[in-house]
Amino acid sequence: MKIVLIGSGNVATHLANAFHKVGLNIVQVWSRNLAHASALATQVGAQTISSLEEVDVNADFCILSIKDESIVEISRQLSHFKGIIAHTSGATDIDIFKENFINYGVFYPLQTFSKQKQVDFRSIPLCLEANNPSTLLKLEELAKTISQNIKPINSNERKVLHLAAVFACNFPNYLYGVASNLLTDNGLEFNLLRPLILETAEKVMQALPQNVQTGPAVRNDEQTMGAHLKMLENQPEMVSIYKLLSDGIKMGK
Amino acid sequence: MKIVLIGSGNVATHLANAFHKVGLNIVQVWSRNLAHASALATQVGAQTISSLEEVDVNADFCILSIKDESIVEISRQLSHFKGIIAHTSGATDIDIFKENFINYGVFYPLQTFSKQKQVDFRSIPLCLEANNPSTLLKLEELAKTISQNIKPINSNERKVLHLAAVFACNFPNYLYGVASNLLTDNGLEFNLLRPLILETAEKVMQALPQNVQTGPAVRNDEQTMGAHLKMLENQPEMVSIYKLLSDGIKMGK
Repeated sequence: MKIVLIGSGNVATHLANAFHKVGLNIVQVWSRNLAHASALATQVGAQTISSLEEVDVNADFCILSIKDESIVEISRQLSHFKGIIAHTSGATDIDIFKENFINYGVFYPLQTFSKQKQVDFRSIPLCLEANNPSTLLKLEELAKTISQNIKPINSNERKVLHLAAVFACNFPNYLYGVASNLLTDNGLEFNLLRPLILETAEKVMQALPQNVQTGPAVRNDEQTMGAHLKMLENQPEMVSIYKLLSDGIKMGK
Repeated sequence: MKIVLIGSGNVATHLANAFHKVGLNIVQVWSRNLAHASALATQVGAQTISSLEEVDVNADFCILSIKDESIVEISRQLSHFKGIIAHTSGATDIDIFKENFINYGVFYPLQTFSKQKQVDFRSIPLCLEANNPSTLLKLEELAKTISQNIKPINSNERKVLHLAAVFACNFPNYLYGVASNLLTDNGLEFNLLRPLILETAEKVMQALPQNVQTGPAVRNDEQTMGAHLKMLENQPEMVSIYKLLSDGIKMGK
């Protein structure tokens, strides 16, 4: 299987390395940032291309792992591509390929990627969608080389997943940062909270979060919540967040 | 070392089991709920007592692991105790013991406990405070039997930690629940999000959360955020949470 990769960001990099690791052939890498494209291409033994016109139109897959707002524009410039084109975006409809391609789809890894940390792709849900059954089969074949967790997911479902991922990942990480700032401002180390953060996540690997909620809000411990709000009184945004999330916990929704 | 345990909730249960596992002698368990006390006492080979007057006044430690609002009242009834009395509360000052005891302190495990899940105590930060150096030494001796992560933390620091723990644990778990509801409402399984949740927590085991923030808000991706808000339009509380946390991420604080 020959793969052309468009993009050199976090998702593109992790995906390229995962494909490369299982021996797949990434033939070309293109990125708006040529230096990034070249660095990634070198990592995975691919050719760097500086123009989308150079794309090998006979490759099996062209994976677009670029910013959501660029997908339409870049894909238009790839209309000469003859294989399967797929984007990796959680929030972008499959239909954006409709006008310019015959076989197309979505290859969405439901995970958070940072350049500095390796991830094990085998357990990452790969959410696949295609415009016809044979294309879905080929995307599944590709996906199975790197993950054991393949899900056919349509565009509407994927948008829900993407939104849910913001609540389950981006917002919790932000709140870890709030906690970290609270500690730092008081001369305490963030390290103290790390076991708690990990255990909180590990707990919901088996249980449902609603069944393992702890803390003052779920106990309706007004005294503690009052003391917390008093400690935050110089940070009005934090007061708002504390109240809103505590209210949500109290109402159990 | 002889320990009297007051309480039979999540913290009391996990603590009792950790002490029992390393061979410490829990002599008595008291709880307002006699059946719970008896069940826990049986687990750890202790005597159940139905009245605080029966407390073995010559035990080395009396650990109060009860609701915050009961600590003052219950401790008053234990003023005949001769050993070290300590509570396990994050939000309660050490001084509540001042009037009735000579040697007292705090033994606060910074972790989230649920009855259905075992935890490994060795990495849990045990935050200790005492009213004199010899009592602190004895609490440290006790703590070292179950954890390798012992920290002297004063009452003000502990209150900050407790507040930070709400942001790092209780609120993220609530948001996991919001994500779970979004999926369930759309016929999708929570299981799809579990690898993402775990990776989000694992990422900050090394990195600082501020350095690994991902998602539409940190990219200032207004198009995606607009689409998300539209999907939430029938849930005004969720719109408020989405906006408030996204604003926090955008402002980087």
